Amino acid sequence: MKCMKIFALPAILLAGGICLGQTKSAEPVAIEDFKPAVSNQPGKEYPQVNSEGRVRASISAPEAMKVQLDMSGVKYDLRRDSSGVWMGDSNPQDEGFHYYQLWIDGAAVPDPGSLYYYGAMRWGSGIEIPAKDQDFFALKNVPHGQMREIYFPSKSTNSSRRAFVYTPPGYDMDKTKLYPVLYLQHGWGENEYGWPNQGKTNLIMDNLIAEGKTKPFIIVMTYGMTNDTRFGGLRTFDINPFQTVLVDELIPYIDTHFRTLADQSHRAMAGLSMGGFETRLITLKKLDIFSHIGLFSGGSISMEDVNNVAGFKEKIKLVFVSYGGRELEHRRNNRRGPFGGDPKENTDAIKAAGINAHFYVSPNTAHEWQSWRRSLYFFAQLLFKY
Amino acid sequence: MKCMKIFALPAILLAGGICLGQTKSAEPVAIEDFKPAVSNQPGKEYPQVNSEGRVRASISAPEAMKVQLDMSGVKYDLRRDSSGVWMGDSNPQDEGFHYYQLWIDGAAVPDPGSLYYYGAMRWGSGIEIPAKDQDFFALKNVPHGQMREIYFPSKSTNSSRRAFVYTPPGYDMDKTKLYPVLYLQHGWGENEYGWPNQGKTNLIMDNLIAEGKTKPFIIVMTYGMTNDTRFGGLRTFDINPFQTVLVDELIPYIDTHFRTLADQSHRAMAGLSMGGFETRLITLKKLDIFSHIGLFSGGSISMEDVNNVAGFKEKIKLVFVSYGGRELEHRRNNRRGPFGGDPKENTDAIKAAGINAHFYVSPNTAHEWQSWRRSLYFFAQLLFKY
Repeated sequence: MKCMKIFALPAILLAGGICLGQTKSAEPVAIEDFKPAVSNQPGKEYPQVNSEGRVRASISAPEAMKVQLDMSGVKYDLRRDSSGVWMGDSNPQDEGFHYYQLWIDGAAVPDPGSLYYYGAMRWGSGIEIPAKDQDFFALKNVPHGQMREIYFPSKSTNSSRRAFVYTPPGYDMDKTKLYPVLYLQHGWGENEYGWPNQGKTNLIMDNLIAEGKTKPFIIVMTYGMTNDTRFGGLRTFDINPFQTVLVDELIPYIDTHFRTLADQSHRAMAGLSMGGFETRLITLKKLDIFSHIGLFSGGSISMEDVNNVAGFKEKIKLVFVSYGGRELEHRRNNRRGPFGGDPKENTDAIKAAGINAHFYVSPNTAHEWQSWRRSLYFFAQLLFKY
Repeated sequence: MKCMKIFALPAILLAGGICLGQTKSAEPVAIEDFKPAVSNQPGKEYPQVNSEGRVRASISAPEAMKVQLDMSGVKYDLRRDSSGVWMGDSNPQDEGFHYYQLWIDGAAVPDPGSLYYYGAMRWGSGIEIPAKDQDFFALKNVPHGQMREIYFPSKSTNSSRRAFVYTPPGYDMDKTKLYPVLYLQHGWGENEYGWPNQGKTNLIMDNLIAEGKTKPFIIVMTYGMTNDTRFGGLRTFDINPFQTVLVDELIPYIDTHFRTLADQSHRAMAGLSMGGFETRLITLKKLDIFSHIGLFSGGSISMEDVNNVAGFKEKIKLVFVSYGGRELEHRRNNRRGPFGGDPKENTDAIKAAGINAHFYVSPNTAHEWQSWRRSLYFFAQLLFKY
């Protein structure tokens, strides 16, 4: 059985969380149709995935005594063959993207076969379990936007800071057109590479735009843990340092250097997990800056918010709240809600009060990237509709 | 002593090459001033580098029997402390960037402390040994250009192909200005991430432009091993598949989607190692497409080329040839030249014949990235001078 990852703060904000690892052998493989994962490095045969969603890892370690595959909170023992190559399988995994690692005689290391992603506070292995709906983030022969790495000056942190900026297809062709902007945040232990890499942001948007399902808009992604030079703690979390970078430094830079519709009605903020937490804190304080709010696995907006924040009803044009089905189920079974109340009930209540509010549940996924890719996919289709 | 990497094809084209690894212990450390490498993952204490250029690696592997640091062709044994943490040092390394890896009980794995780079046909560890001239590729508070990830359609390979496009500071501000373009290629076993990541292309250009040392121009980087789906072989190397992608597909796409000066006199091609080999083959066949040629550790242009290629003298405005000092020395000591003759003698000869030709030697570096960063730095200052 799966190790659940959704307990409380900070675990609830930890994307691709780590919990107390069990050690076990996988159940017998039912279907021997393993293929190299699409998230492998070019030409690498392992790791592989089968149609049950099991992961088969393999590494040559002729002098090792013990090798394990560590994913979704479980360590699976690999077996050694006579040539010193170790191999072993996991139990079936949820569809979508998962962080993982290998253990070799007590050392936790990236799998040399996988591509690397930043999450759980390190660059390390990730693997893609094919999803039934993976077409929405596939690389297709459609017009493509650009993912731009930029550096913007930040006085408050005395640094040049990196951001990624997605510009939609055609941005460079019609040089007079102006675009709305979505500011999109990663989760705890992740960074500004999360949405471009494991989030597949550019492909999701390229495909939506090609199908005419969303208006073209710009997406800006930057590092959201500005307040913590130790790269971690949530106990000392203070939104102000990041809010200053985002609102006082990044937004003016983007509005100067990109062709934006530079007003409140064309500016959205969203985030996953801790990024949702940040989105909620910042947007509720900055109703004159943002008009559209997206919270992916990161809390909700309650009637208390609507009533207490002056101007909310007039100024906020969209509230989108989403969760992975598995994390929502776990949350309800445990009757806890660190962000105040059940998110579906909260969203229903503000909708009944006249807010343009939407609640989305990602089927059969936990507090992981497949939930957030789907959230972006549905959120984007609701944005800037006026 | 160092393991030399510059022998013959394909070794001469292998960036950050791998040769028969010796196993040894490092000489005693002279200076105990180790600091975390600037190429480490955020917050990671190891690997470290001291002022001699030694690398100190460390990893927790309590159950391991043998752990080694493998760099520049030598495997250094690490020693285990009572808590199961292994640590050990290399001999002094050349300044600049080096690929490396760890061995844990016979498994070759990335170091969990380092950032990862694509080279030697894998994403793996790299480390930066501080260079005396590192200021030229430092991140400074100057106007920054953008590094854009694009996908362009390729009929010849039936795919959407990735390229990175550097646009200089100000590109988005003056929407009428047109720019020259440099097409810049990686080496064997590397890919289109090489120049943006370990090459520091954007920072080198941002700094040069801020100091007024180069004209602003666009740089385009794409994958150059189009001909080999097995990601490797040079024996079967055929330039035509890549030439088709570059000349017939990528260049027209760039000229349509970016504000380029879309003619021969404003178009350059350069490459390192195998990328120089490709540059030489393509530019000599395509004098009507390119006017400026840069070969970094990848051959030279001889009088035979100048005499045999019709129109060379009239059409080619710059030939820049460079090598790392250590590889050039080794090459001369061994009296071999797979690209025909001594590159300095060839360059002197075509210069005497009236070609605008330049020869640069990177001091105290081998067939590695510090040679190529410096080559780009000096090449850029000579480009598009008319």
